[in-house]
Amino acid sequence: MAQRLEKTLYIGPFVHCESLAELDVCPNGMIGVDEDGKIAFILRSIKGRRFPNGEDWEEAKIGVILIDSDTHIHAPQYPNAGVFGKSTLLDWLNTYTYPMESSLSNLEQAARVYNRVVARTLSHGTTTACYYATVHVPATNLLADICQSRGQRAFVGRVCMNRMSPDYYRDESVESAVRDTKACIEHVKQIDPLYDLVTPIITPRFAPSCTPEALSAMGRLHHEEQIPAQTHISENKAECELVAKCFPSHKSYAHVYDSAGLLTPRMILAHAIHLSPEERTLIKNRNAKISHCPASNTALTSGTAPVRDMLNEGLTIGLGTDVSGGYTSSILSETREALFVSRHVAYNTGNDEAKLSVEEALYLATRGGAKVVGLENRIGGFNVGMDWDAQMVGLAGVGDTIGIDQTAGPVEIFGQESWEEKMAKWVYTGDDRNTTAVWVKGRLVHSRESFKP
Amino acid sequence: MAQRLEKTLYIGPFVHCESLAELDVCPNGMIGVDEDGKIAFILRSIKGRRFPNGEDWEEAKIGVILIDSDTHIHAPQYPNAGVFGKSTLLDWLNTYTYPMESSLSNLEQAARVYNRVVARTLSHGTTTACYYATVHVPATNLLADICQSRGQRAFVGRVCMNRMSPDYYRDESVESAVRDTKACIEHVKQIDPLYDLVTPIITPRFAPSCTPEALSAMGRLHHEEQIPAQTHISENKAECELVAKCFPSHKSYAHVYDSAGLLTPRMILAHAIHLSPEERTLIKNRNAKISHCPASNTALTSGTAPVRDMLNEGLTIGLGTDVSGGYTSSILSETREALFVSRHVAYNTGNDEAKLSVEEALYLATRGGAKVVGLENRIGGFNVGMDWDAQMVGLAGVGDTIGIDQTAGPVEIFGQESWEEKMAKWVYTGDDRNTTAVWVKGRLVHSRESFKP
Repeated sequence: MAQRLEKTLYIGPFVHCESLAELDVCPNGMIGVDEDGKIAFILRSIKGRRFPNGEDWEEAKIGVILIDSDTHIHAPQYPNAGVFGKSTLLDWLNTYTYPMESSLSNLEQAARVYNRVVARTLSHGTTTACYYATVHVPATNLLADICQSRGQRAFVGRVCMNRMSPDYYRDESVESAVRDTKACIEHVKQIDPLYDLVTPIITPRFAPSCTPEALSAMGRLHHEEQIPAQTHISENKAECELVAKCFPSHKSYAHVYDSAGLLTPRMILAHAIHLSPEERTLIKNRNAKISHCPASNTALTSGTAPVRDMLNEGLTIGLGTDVSGGYTSSILSETREALFVSRHVAYNTGNDEAKLSVEEALYLATRGGAKVVGLENRIGGFNVGMDWDAQMVGLAGVGDTIGIDQTAGPVEIFGQESWEEKMAKWVYTGDDRNTTAVWVKGRLVHSRESFKP
Repeated sequence: MAQRLEKTLYIGPFVHCESLAELDVCPNGMIGVDEDGKIAFILRSIKGRRFPNGEDWEEAKIGVILIDSDTHIHAPQYPNAGVFGKSTLLDWLNTYTYPMESSLSNLEQAARVYNRVVARTLSHGTTTACYYATVHVPATNLLADICQSRGQRAFVGRVCMNRMSPDYYRDESVESAVRDTKACIEHVKQIDPLYDLVTPIITPRFAPSCTPEALSAMGRLHHEEQIPAQTHISENKAECELVAKCFPSHKSYAHVYDSAGLLTPRMILAHAIHLSPEERTLIKNRNAKISHCPASNTALTSGTAPVRDMLNEGLTIGLGTDVSGGYTSSILSETREALFVSRHVAYNTGNDEAKLSVEEALYLATRGGAKVVGLENRIGGFNVGMDWDAQMVGLAGVGDTIGIDQTAGPVEIFGQESWEEKMAKWVYTGDDRNTTAVWVKGRLVHSRESFKP
């Protein structure tokens, strides 16, 4: 199945996250990527530039590079990006979200939306995305097909929701939910038997949308199929109260998922704002993962997640755009939002330690995201044996010319900046114009006109 | 002096703010702009499209248009945009800001920075900017020259700072501060005697940087010269404590400026986060104006300004990017930041009313900004007799094509959107790529390649 690639030498500066606090900057290195799209070797200095294994390596110039994962994004909500008024979670679902998701039953509409969202997120440098789709089997399968053909590493989840959902948009029964979920799993097995690029993911919408039986059925599928799961947790206070009412015999929101067999190392929990200390301990003990969605949490006035506390407790955290609760499909913008929300937490709590550094936010978007999706041994950084999932970041220097080049984007490198400052400028002022090229598993999946390998 | 322009008919949809809560959308109108760059007439329907006054009018197609004012931006800090680490106001000044501002004593450096910042802010649709420059007379005059030649409406202030500033960057004495400020005022009088495009502005940095004598001297100049003034107020709690210590005989921070004769209808106060109710009443009674700088306030962990309360009290508020406390030189990004900060205020206070709507945030960026700079009769909306300060906003529709056009920017118009939703998408997901053309006083001062009049 796997496409054989030209063995390629990527020559130039590279940057990735060494640890939560540290960027590893190699200003002048060489990375060899083999026919399977895996990193075969890394040279930290190219003095002499002797080519390994004779002459059969292609050569490509690269810039600063990093790998981004979006650990929570609702593909069908993409046409609503930026449209949410003054709503909060529960009214937002009914006003904006369910009608939009429901419209994806039309496959032409699904093709239009899903092609855009995959192309657009690739252009933002999202090499891996965890997608919520809709309840619809054909449209969900189409999303998987589009990820496969466009080459984006993706987790694609058919949404399970069999109560407290509109009549026009819901699962009819637990049985139909299981059958439809299995149909989507089977489809991915057809197009990508080893889940090499696309993986199905068990996706109970959130506890209030699922009966206990539906949650348990999803928990069983999660174990039987040995595939990951994703859901929402503790995003909004009214939602938390609703969960307490819907599941009166459970100790907490986290326990609802735990008792359904869903709180596992392969579960991705989006938001996680209002968790109690006991819930965080439970999540930590189960080694379930957290997707932090700062833009959405601010937009829908959901609150501010205590990221520093959760990191200190040893929880594993990545970033999610949560389109269209989040306005942006750019994981780079989300990185900036994570920095800003951490400053609001610091201000509100009086604890300066709550502030994230640029390096830490980049870690969440790269290595953190890789851990959240369970692929920390394959993606998230540059290490021998890992896949070549990478983006090339172009940062134009300010010349002495009078004019500006809008095609290069608004980052301004005046020349005095350290590497750390360049990365900060990229995070705070950069956009998709700085994402010059994107590779997944060694394959070039997006590039700008300016990219000349 | 004034350039005579072609009389031009601008034909197409136009949008401006009618009031704080209401957008006025005219989907198919015509605006006639005369030789002086003033709006001669407005037709809300172009049925029949009879041209007024015979055939001597040029015709230009326009898109959605609005006018933005940046009421607080530090031009010399532009090379530091995005670079501030985890600092807060007082350490940020010493670590990042004073060294950068000081470097503008070099006129080559000043030319490089100021040309960029004016070109860049124009490309973001900033038709009017209130600039802090530096203490340096030649560099400040150069900034005025650049605004004049590039056609940006600007208030250009030489900074007065004669204490608690580094030895390498300060005014030597009150006398030298007055002399240098006057030299900059004289320069603008030479290049723009009627302050038609460029206006000098009295700029005491902030109370801690100025002795009481310096503040009073600036207050006298403000009155003698009949020109506006700008400063900072109540941005950071440590700063507020410092002011109480430096001015022990004054009742409050606001009283410090008031007693120096600076709290007037033509004073622009940036930040205004931690004001007491008494200070807000004093500011209201003096009819001084507020520049709200949400991106900067979050970045430097300064706090969240209570914008809704201040609006309810009748204070006049515009938006400021506050580069480089703020990371962005885009007043559009700042509009989004204002929306987000208002949501943090709503969440923290439990008062949903604190949330700004997109329409309200746009009002602050347009009519609000015009009032803050005292030009509400000339700019900020489309009314007969006002100047043609405008930007054309291009919002590309999503076709049925598979690819995306990155040159058009990330706003995605799927076709089902109302005008209000289109504006929301622009504010939340738009950038300078949507700013197709910009006019100031009828003159085209920026356009993208895609602009075809």
